[in-house]
Amino acid sequence: MNQTITWKKHLKICLLFLLLVSVQLKADPLPSWNNGPTKNSLIQFVREATEKGHPHFIPIEERIAAFDEDGTLWVEQPLYTQFFFALETLKSLAAQHPKWENQEPFKSILSGNKEVIQNLTLPEMEQILVVTHTGMTVEAFHKQFKKPFTELVYQPMLELIQFLRSHQFEIYIVSGGGQEFMRAFAQKVYGIPPSHVIGTAGKVKYDYQNGRPVLVKTPELLFVDDKEGKPEGINLVIGQRPVAAFGNSIGDQQMLEWTQAGSRKSLQVLIHHDDAQREYAYGPESKIGTFSDALMAKQRGWIVVSIKKDWNRIFSWQSKSDDSSPPKLR
Amino acid sequence: MNQTITWKKHLKICLLFLLLVSVQLKADPLPSWNNGPTKNSLIQFVREATEKGHPHFIPIEERIAAFDEDGTLWVEQPLYTQFFFALETLKSLAAQHPKWENQEPFKSILSGNKEVIQNLTLPEMEQILVVTHTGMTVEAFHKQFKKPFTELVYQPMLELIQFLRSHQFEIYIVSGGGQEFMRAFAQKVYGIPPSHVIGTAGKVKYDYQNGRPVLVKTPELLFVDDKEGKPEGINLVIGQRPVAAFGNSIGDQQMLEWTQAGSRKSLQVLIHHDDAQREYAYGPESKIGTFSDALMAKQRGWIVVSIKKDWNRIFSWQSKSDDSSPPKLR
Repeated sequence: MNQTITWKKHLKICLLFLLLVSVQLKADPLPSWNNGPTKNSLIQFVREATEKGHPHFIPIEERIAAFDEDGTLWVEQPLYTQFFFALETLKSLAAQHPKWENQEPFKSILSGNKEVIQNLTLPEMEQILVVTHTGMTVEAFHKQFKKPFTELVYQPMLELIQFLRSHQFEIYIVSGGGQEFMRAFAQKVYGIPPSHVIGTAGKVKYDYQNGRPVLVKTPELLFVDDKEGKPEGINLVIGQRPVAAFGNSIGDQQMLEWTQAGSRKSLQVLIHHDDAQREYAYGPESKIGTFSDALMAKQRGWIVVSIKKDWNRIFSWQSKSDDSSPPKLR
Repeated sequence: MNQTITWKKHLKICLLFLLLVSVQLKADPLPSWNNGPTKNSLIQFVREATEKGHPHFIPIEERIAAFDEDGTLWVEQPLYTQFFFALETLKSLAAQHPKWENQEPFKSILSGNKEVIQNLTLPEMEQILVVTHTGMTVEAFHKQFKKPFTELVYQPMLELIQFLRSHQFEIYIVSGGGQEFMRAFAQKVYGIPPSHVIGTAGKVKYDYQNGRPVLVKTPELLFVDDKEGKPEGINLVIGQRPVAAFGNSIGDQQMLEWTQAGSRKSLQVLIHHDDAQREYAYGPESKIGTFSDALMAKQRGWIVVSIKKDWNRIFSWQSKSDDSSPPKLR
């Protein structure tokens, strides 16, 4: 018990600690993003929002960030991921529904008619989602990437979520996808709990089965969380205007506008799928994830992310592309 | 720089710190609750839920507590508080609606007919809530207590919320009251942010006014957060089953049942208003806050709080009643 610590020793430990902290601060928070104006803007927004006294400082309780899912956090081509799960569910349910054999679009889907599947209208897809109550009880694989869909999340976006979270932003998913469908994997895939998943929601009915209370899904929709439904859903579930919003299509326009109309300096980001080689390239003509000049993104000061130019890898299992120079942060 | 700290000194500081911590632990977390079985049960639930290795331990991400508001967190007699705000709003709007002068129930309310006001049916009240879009833009005072309603929150329940929160429970309000109405004061009064307020919600419509995006209220209801609507609303907004639920009337039955049907050891509490001297006494005959034997609270293992016996004061501005002996925790 005679051992002593000198103040010198103390000082050394302190300096070592400060050094570690500063190394940590200089580490690149977005390693899958190429250096350039897009990455700089994202980092600048977070730095200013979290710097006390800065005119763009945002108090912690207002740091709310909303992310679309399909095409923003994971692959949405050739069809929405949820729909592939619905097709798998449909096949597993077919034996219980013999009349589907003579009823379109079920008949063609069950017979594996690719042309019909590719050309389904959105209302037909919705009909299938409703009858299947799509959950994640089945497995579905992406044919081109030969991967389960949960491995087709965008690594640069996971880094962005982590970067925002480490600066005390609350992260919400605000997607046209089914709320219960997304809740089944959002915690595992994105670290986002069920209370932070806003999506298209069906009505549920409280009932009893053998005296035990249950919530039973009904075929009616409560609300569609797409386009104007996104700010409406945000208002219902969060009750506050986000300060950052991320999307990729005309379905996200209203959410970005709504976020921008707040009194704080805010961030609007659109992911542009322009990389046919590594993922997909699609724009104004696409049935899914329509990205059009009518969004007037640049005129409004929204950041447009070019997957081709801004991301040095798309998925965690890919190696970085050549043009990823070592990060040089300001 | 030659000064040294001996390990002995270190040890002394550590012991002092531990002493402070243990004093803190022994401080009564619920000073407005009388000692007895009710208080003991509440404390025991929290202790077990937060003790690692205990069979009733609840992981942090599942610690969700749901509180009804009217009659559970604040006064609901002689009529729901929101309704008094609606009456004040109605008066302030009357000049813009001359036809109310000849239209019931508006005519009688505006003329101050107490008998009519006391005997309004629930659908009539709803009609008034809809036309007034009641917010907190007006002030309303409770006649008996001569206090603004935000000072008529129950001090013992504020302590309970704080006690749960300090043990990493997430606190939600789940009330039949209007969601936007409650959000206007929940942060200030209970420390509960808008995202944690679930209530009866009207539809809103995303629109533009002078090119600026706005959410406009419509007269339609999206859902009624009462009775079976409470577990339905919890499912929509939280997406997880709470482990603790607090209510005071038949409107809370389903929320308590739903909470109890989970796999964890959970807590169900009903506040019984049996103190005509300090607040109100009402039961199965009451139009508002009906508390009936049909709830079978005790048979189900629900805790029934007697305001008369269990609370030594009801509001923060009251002094403690005589029977508050010094706390004796196990």
